[in-house]
Amino acid sequence: MTRILFAASPERWSDYRDVLPAALEARGVAHEILTLADAPDPASVDWVVYAPSSALQDFTPYTRLKGVLNLWAGVEDVEGNRSLTAPLARMVDDALTQGMVEWVTGHVLRHHLGIDAHLRGAGWDPTPPPLAADRPVAILGLGVLGAACARALAGLGFPVTGWSRGPKEIEGVTALTGANGLRRALSGAEIVVLLVPHARATENLMDAERLGWMRDGAVLLNPGRGALIDDEALLAALDRLGHATLDTFRQEPLPEDHPFWAHPKVTVTPHIASATRPASAAHVIAENIRRGEAGEPLLHLVDRREALA
Amino acid sequence: MTRILFAASPERWSDYRDVLPAALEARGVAHEILTLADAPDPASVDWVVYAPSSALQDFTPYTRLKGVLNLWAGVEDVEGNRSLTAPLARMVDDALTQGMVEWVTGHVLRHHLGIDAHLRGAGWDPTPPPLAADRPVAILGLGVLGAACARALAGLGFPVTGWSRGPKEIEGVTALTGANGLRRALSGAEIVVLLVPHARATENLMDAERLGWMRDGAVLLNPGRGALIDDEALLAALDRLGHATLDTFRQEPLPEDHPFWAHPKVTVTPHIASATRPASAAHVIAENIRRGEAGEPLLHLVDRREALA
Repeated sequence: MTRILFAASPERWSDYRDVLPAALEARGVAHEILTLADAPDPASVDWVVYAPSSALQDFTPYTRLKGVLNLWAGVEDVEGNRSLTAPLARMVDDALTQGMVEWVTGHVLRHHLGIDAHLRGAGWDPTPPPLAADRPVAILGLGVLGAACARALAGLGFPVTGWSRGPKEIEGVTALTGANGLRRALSGAEIVVLLVPHARATENLMDAERLGWMRDGAVLLNPGRGALIDDEALLAALDRLGHATLDTFRQEPLPEDHPFWAHPKVTVTPHIASATRPASAAHVIAENIRRGEAGEPLLHLVDRREALA
Repeated sequence: MTRILFAASPERWSDYRDVLPAALEARGVAHEILTLADAPDPASVDWVVYAPSSALQDFTPYTRLKGVLNLWAGVEDVEGNRSLTAPLARMVDDALTQGMVEWVTGHVLRHHLGIDAHLRGAGWDPTPPPLAADRPVAILGLGVLGAACARALAGLGFPVTGWSRGPKEIEGVTALTGANGLRRALSGAEIVVLLVPHARATENLMDAERLGWMRDGAVLLNPGRGALIDDEALLAALDRLGHATLDTFRQEPLPEDHPFWAHPKVTVTPHIASATRPASAAHVIAENIRRGEAGEPLLHLVDRREALA
């Protein structure tokens, strides 16, 4: 009997209480699932399904732990936790990737087509927008999410430049690395999409200097992580930039008095781009538990060397 | 020396006066291009590059005519012209198709993601939209434009049902025909895209009855032709439907006092979805003239049997 601790809020548990047992049963994993409210003996827990915001922060007493399965793609609030010595897997859910592709493609096309002006009733100016082939897009971050968005936008005809820490190869995408590559990506694009993970090296990635590398009138999309942007620097840069469409923020929900809400060049979406859908995510978690119990390698393991360095 | 009459407005000629001669020269076609202002002898004209709204309506004196090359995809204002006995070719421009795919994909994603509410500042409701897989789309018309849009939307994960006069096969798309097929397509979709050609059979295709087949809250996109919709019936149906985003109208520019401008459930875009781009369209025209002069079959010929019946 595999013992699983679901360490997340009661609201989250209500999303998973039906689908997670079903996904485990479908794989023949005999299991018992407990929540933090059940206060299980830490030394008896085999697996933790984890929200980094939960009360569980000290993994030291979890002496039998075989792995921590993060409920989200972002692991910045757990990967540096030194009390955690068991393997850590991130959520890589096809539904999450698909949702991100839809959000990014939709907002890129919205800005490309000038839809906001039509919604304001801009009147009859039948000048067509340029074609996608004349609208360069840069995607910072070419992980699972960034690569999927890059492929979708390239498929629609946009010239896509990607930037990532290590070299990547994606058909139809110009992939750059390093500081020079970042400058080239930012200065060459009319629409910039932030999909790098949040880590020490990417905190405030878009500061005044990097925002200054963007073209006049260019648009910034942030479905990644709020901490990638220096908010004050962005507000100052918007005098010159075209627009910022933001889905993630340093504090969520975004406080009602935050200047982003009222700024005419900012669109706020409420962290919906990368939502985990429990129905599919439960299968990703269950598959990793099955693998771990069968002695097979876990999927989507996080390389924590940099976070722990 | 091939003599070509450019029968369109002077503004249009200014778009083509550089690119059309260059496209002909690139194909080795010795030519002379005249405009209506030059008042050439009709019996001396080999080819007419044609805007159906031009002053040239009686083709009877054009006794040497080898073909009429329409500047747009829509041929409804010329295909029934009995004085025209020479071959008629429509514009099938990759750039026009691409522009249509971008407009349709952008507005489908806009409605799918609920972007309008975010632009209005809807506040923080982090409920993600359904995935594309749960948002059925119907495309009426599976010609070059409709088929390209159907492929693009299916590629993004939307379940796409197409409807056309004759049977079609497009991978990943459910293709229907006939009156029952139309009812099934309209009643099964949350977003409906009109891309059928305008002809007698499709005038007011979306009348009160057909609009009544659409689901409560469903969205209608019309980048096709204004006359496909009964405007009064649409305005009445909007009490129940979710939205209409319209790019084409019976009268263009759309008159300032037309109720579409002010209706909260209508978005007007100024006939930009299917814009012909002269730089690429010139090559389509030049290629057909080269073919005709070389005795090769013309591309994109219009089947006028129904229009002349």
